[in-house]
Amino acid sequence: MSIVDVINKKRLGYALNNEELKYAFNNYMRGNITDYQMSALLMAICINGMNDEEIYYLTDIFINSGDTLDLSKINGVTVDKHSTGGVGDKTTLIIASIVAACSLKVPKMSGRGLGHTGGTIDKLESIPGFKTELTEKEFINQVDEIGLAITSQTGHLAPLDKKIYALRDVTGTVESIPLIASSIMSKKIASGAQNIIIDIKVGNGALIKNKEDAKRLSGIMKKIGKRYNRCVETMITYMDIPLGTSIGNALEVIEVMDILQGKEENYLVELSKALASKMISMGKNITVLEASKEVDEVLHNKKAYEKFLSMVKYQGGNIDKIKVSSNKKEIISSKSGHIIDMNAYEFGKLSLSLGGGRITKEDKIDPSVGIVLNKKIGDDVKKGDVLCTLYLKTDVSDVEFDINNYYTFENRNSKKAVDIIDTTVNKEEF
Amino acid sequence: MSIVDVINKKRLGYALNNEELKYAFNNYMRGNITDYQMSALLMAICINGMNDEEIYYLTDIFINSGDTLDLSKINGVTVDKHSTGGVGDKTTLIIASIVAACSLKVPKMSGRGLGHTGGTIDKLESIPGFKTELTEKEFINQVDEIGLAITSQTGHLAPLDKKIYALRDVTGTVESIPLIASSIMSKKIASGAQNIIIDIKVGNGALIKNKEDAKRLSGIMKKIGKRYNRCVETMITYMDIPLGTSIGNALEVIEVMDILQGKEENYLVELSKALASKMISMGKNITVLEASKEVDEVLHNKKAYEKFLSMVKYQGGNIDKIKVSSNKKEIISSKSGHIIDMNAYEFGKLSLSLGGGRITKEDKIDPSVGIVLNKKIGDDVKKGDVLCTLYLKTDVSDVEFDINNYYTFENRNSKKAVDIIDTTVNKEEF
Repeated sequence: MSIVDVINKKRLGYALNNEELKYAFNNYMRGNITDYQMSALLMAICINGMNDEEIYYLTDIFINSGDTLDLSKINGVTVDKHSTGGVGDKTTLIIASIVAACSLKVPKMSGRGLGHTGGTIDKLESIPGFKTELTEKEFINQVDEIGLAITSQTGHLAPLDKKIYALRDVTGTVESIPLIASSIMSKKIASGAQNIIIDIKVGNGALIKNKEDAKRLSGIMKKIGKRYNRCVETMITYMDIPLGTSIGNALEVIEVMDILQGKEENYLVELSKALASKMISMGKNITVLEASKEVDEVLHNKKAYEKFLSMVKYQGGNIDKIKVSSNKKEIISSKSGHIIDMNAYEFGKLSLSLGGGRITKEDKIDPSVGIVLNKKIGDDVKKGDVLCTLYLKTDVSDVEFDINNYYTFENRNSKKAVDIIDTTVNKEEF
Repeated sequence: MSIVDVINKKRLGYALNNEELKYAFNNYMRGNITDYQMSALLMAICINGMNDEEIYYLTDIFINSGDTLDLSKINGVTVDKHSTGGVGDKTTLIIASIVAACSLKVPKMSGRGLGHTGGTIDKLESIPGFKTELTEKEFINQVDEIGLAITSQTGHLAPLDKKIYALRDVTGTVESIPLIASSIMSKKIASGAQNIIIDIKVGNGALIKNKEDAKRLSGIMKKIGKRYNRCVETMITYMDIPLGTSIGNALEVIEVMDILQGKEENYLVELSKALASKMISMGKNITVLEASKEVDEVLHNKKAYEKFLSMVKYQGGNIDKIKVSSNKKEIISSKSGHIIDMNAYEFGKLSLSLGGGRITKEDKIDPSVGIVLNKKIGDDVKKGDVLCTLYLKTDVSDVEFDINNYYTFENRNSKKAVDIIDTTVNKEEF
């Protein structure tokens, strides 16, 4: 077999068999196949696609490239959650706390942010002292004891996926349903949880730009789960506008605590409740409606908030020392109108440029910077109102901000309220 | 501009503009863009194609990456020829001699072989003493004086094409009409000739597998020629069977001399005459029929053969010292029948494995090895007949040869004679 023959076969649109996929990907892992050959193959996969069998094979190759976490020592039903990534997406922190408060076990591995989307590990590291690198033993013990632990992904789970992802990121081969499905599912299966919910974000701020792709991704991920005897559910949700009222690491942790204490009521809260209800429904084998009552209860009686605090404490974090920048700049609206749209992608890039994200993996993040959205979609704005507040690095004196890049105004309310969940796809549960 | 944005645009099937193409390719030339990014872009181009404008831009970028040869010092009309490459394809040596004998000027730059196809420079180097690396001055002076010179391509003509070709060769991105067209035409235009004929080979032994691709390639190459004020003609010819009676460097030079002395009469001779007639018709602005009479004349009176000998002498070669291996092995037919097909690709790979070609650019060729085809397509074979003769390296004792991989037999003549030129495409001239 030669790698050029394998690449040519996929270039011509044929399906690759298990031996060909193993040959190409395992040899890439071993360094016998070059980056430039793998990137050509990845591009051919992006454009010509993969059938279900190919996606199963590839997922298997990724899983077998490293270890699989054994969660059998955890006493209870394990649930895991993944989001395909968005701007201001702090749902993991909210949901994990709620679900653990409802007595399910949440062993959560999370990633760091890259580009305009954030990462849960970066958010947690804004809490001084918070330890994000747990050993396998620490991780499992903590979940067993308090029901919840969040750690950065270890290098031993699906290391080939990590290597491939780094290459995709710089070769324009990120947006591919087969590659996204096998990447996510290999990590989730290697992480060991029995019940997995995937939040598939769709829209201009997300990896998946349209609903058809989201449906295909949803279908194939459920099928992969079935092959590995895992219960996989998905939810297709919109990511055209930033999630919640803040973007930036420390700011988002503060928002999470506000939500867990019932201080906010918006579409992020709704989304988090819907995801949590579905997870609990899966884990406890009850209806979503029954599960949603449990969710409301642990939010109301602050059990979810307490669960969050206990996790922070267990992992060494001191919530009182969390800090946002005191160098603030208020963006004042130069016009009046009704906000009918906000550009999540632009806000994500803005947070990145403020120092809240990284362009290359080596960049250092400033956890204290970010954006608080004072006005949101659906709000009426008068000239002179504060649209949003930027939290700048201490040595930054000013930032350019053209409101037209971020907000779309209209004179009257011509757009209906945002429907965060695609009920046409997810209707069986709602 | 970012290279990932450019790659994504082509992945999604959009046309790239001149600025984007310049950004990607010129920065690759300068080393600012990596091999793995360029190979992803090349694969996207292979699959999603390029429109005519993009092909023009890319050809221009290739040409401008290096020098352009100034042939104005040559007294007379210059003609050039290119073949997309085949097995046993020694037409360049035959045609160049014929055309120069008809008083046109032939400044010919040729390449080396790679993989299963041969290269004119390798063939000439089987002549002891033959100098294949001429300076620009030597090259132009020789053409001016004797009408013919063949040199290896200089590094200064379209160096970016050279770099891109090396990458395409190992990343499964060779078979792309836009990339083939811009690669060939940039070299031909930089080489300076006013009249150019392209022999587009189609078939299992060729780069282009089907007639539709050949037609597209023909059309775009003529258009590119027009933009640079060059007269470009093409001929689409079949390459399913090896050309002529020999494969291997010294063996092919000997065959060329036999043909120029009128000792052979087969489809290779027919093809060479047709190509030469078309070149002379272009260069002298006469009909192909008139040109074909001149061709017959210089073959009959040996002027073409003398032209070949004078070129060899001028470039330092000693034709009397050319040597084929004395370690021969005759392949005896184990069955009787009529040969209805021969596999050019398999014969090409056989010659390669005997040591007559190179797999990597660093491999050294043995000019004395090769294959003589004693029986050809259309021939009747009896069990015990010699099908072909292998010329082996002196230290090789035997070679495996399964005749079924190379020949297709049938009991009766069920296939009409080989039509070497696609008359349905090239009918205007025949």
